[in-house]
Amino acid sequence: MALKLTSTIAVCGGKLLKLSHPSSSTGTNMDINLYLPKQYYNSAESAKLIPSLLYLSGLTCSPQNASEKAFWQIQADKYGFAVIFPDTSPRGEGVATDPEGSWDFGIGAGFYVNATEQPYSAHYNMYDYVHKELPQVLAEEFGSKVDFFDNISITGHSMGGFGALSGYLKNINRYKSCSAFAPIVNPSTVPWGQKAFKGYLGEDKRIWAEYDPSDLVKTVTNVNGDKILIHVGTSDPFLEKHLKPHLIEDAAKGTSWEGKIEVNIEDGFDHSYYFISSFVPQHAEFHAKHLGLI
Amino acid sequence: MALKLTSTIAVCGGKLLKLSHPSSSTGTNMDINLYLPKQYYNSAESAKLIPSLLYLSGLTCSPQNASEKAFWQIQADKYGFAVIFPDTSPRGEGVATDPEGSWDFGIGAGFYVNATEQPYSAHYNMYDYVHKELPQVLAEEFGSKVDFFDNISITGHSMGGFGALSGYLKNINRYKSCSAFAPIVNPSTVPWGQKAFKGYLGEDKRIWAEYDPSDLVKTVTNVNGDKILIHVGTSDPFLEKHLKPHLIEDAAKGTSWEGKIEVNIEDGFDHSYYFISSFVPQHAEFHAKHLGLI
Repeated sequence: MALKLTSTIAVCGGKLLKLSHPSSSTGTNMDINLYLPKQYYNSAESAKLIPSLLYLSGLTCSPQNASEKAFWQIQADKYGFAVIFPDTSPRGEGVATDPEGSWDFGIGAGFYVNATEQPYSAHYNMYDYVHKELPQVLAEEFGSKVDFFDNISITGHSMGGFGALSGYLKNINRYKSCSAFAPIVNPSTVPWGQKAFKGYLGEDKRIWAEYDPSDLVKTVTNVNGDKILIHVGTSDPFLEKHLKPHLIEDAAKGTSWEGKIEVNIEDGFDHSYYFISSFVPQHAEFHAKHLGLI
Repeated sequence: MALKLTSTIAVCGGKLLKLSHPSSSTGTNMDINLYLPKQYYNSAESAKLIPSLLYLSGLTCSPQNASEKAFWQIQADKYGFAVIFPDTSPRGEGVATDPEGSWDFGIGAGFYVNATEQPYSAHYNMYDYVHKELPQVLAEEFGSKVDFFDNISITGHSMGGFGALSGYLKNINRYKSCSAFAPIVNPSTVPWGQKAFKGYLGEDKRIWAEYDPSDLVKTVTNVNGDKILIHVGTSDPFLEKHLKPHLIEDAAKGTSWEGKIEVNIEDGFDHSYYFISSFVPQHAEFHAKHLGLI
């Protein structure tokens, strides 16, 4: 198989598989963590397919951070869904990174877009990777028991919260539900997003708008009347400068998304996995409903 | 106060406090993480004191590891107990460590004993620290709402599992209950324990026996008929060489502890926080019963 299994770790009632594979999207080897819940091991091949949840991590993260600290596993067992933890960028020899060496662009900070600018366009095709190649690669090995295409939801944190919102809106009939933890909701107008978009996509803001959730809510119709669930903490150090969650609520006014973007501002929570893990149970229940598990 | 509050982090329904204080036991500054559950913030000063659980971490850990990865917080909120995460050794300038620089002795590896050997006896007094000074220091600040003396249980992982067993047995009327994750149950007979005991306590095996759980079960009477709860995984790389959990069951034969030490060998689990977090819910329920919360 294209997927190489590097480790199988017992967690809760299921297994966390550490996988890697050569990616045609990024031209690099990509690591994936995949949590298969207890239902995977208890169900027959012919049973109903197990739904999946795609979790996109934030700046600097690898597949390990959320696997270790977000505690999706106990929720995945509770409801019966698999959780996919991809990497946040291509890595390895020949992969360009931020010339200034900062942590908010380049390696660990792929922003889930397809780069058009040199030198990043050679490897930074994270949009194609997470939404197209990743489910194909996983389905080749696990598709007989897990649904990576038709019954899948998406979530993420910070940069990955942007990636979840953007990927959901750009593929409106693809994901059953979308949620985000402390997302960058309007990258075109905040420093993290502007740096990434300029670096990966160039100066043409029409291309930026194709990825920006606060632009997409104006052009994409909420055909099913779905709600998007967002949590962010008042003690998040990035709240005022990079996250600004009200911007997507403002953008949604007068569109089919008005009143459908539930932004919960939580007193005292920060940007860390302490925050994420505290709200994972609510997000798990939200997705479980949309995945037909409740 | 002697305690300095360096950070307050919202987690689940409570707060994780990062604290530090000058310790008279170790002669160093010691860090502590303290999780105060939602009941702490919802209860009046005059309400019943909130019980506490002392969690002793394993080799190389600081107070952060278990705070981030063991996920006690949601359980603490469920039942209503505080969780104390002390450090695993003294640290800082002038603190001697392993002359070979290895990770299983010295800094991060204090083994929860009072060292008698030079140069370690100057600072490595972790037994006095965790069982005597720590509750005093915490009670000075939080004692009006949290019980650190009379309604407290103890648990730990690996070296900290040894520390929990040893501390529980040496203070048989002190802790309401004891559990351990992958503990070193008979340090006097395994390499990790022998290295630590020789380094901290010298060659006299009578002193080793004063700390060794598999010796203590022979001399300490199980006055209340209490059970000790232990989990260990079959894929734990240290199982055969350092942990050998059957040794404490063997030692307990013919004593008041016979049949009271429940060793659960769990298929496929390793030594990591993936293992710990998977069984924290069972240990939390066990302690909650003994703390009068169920």
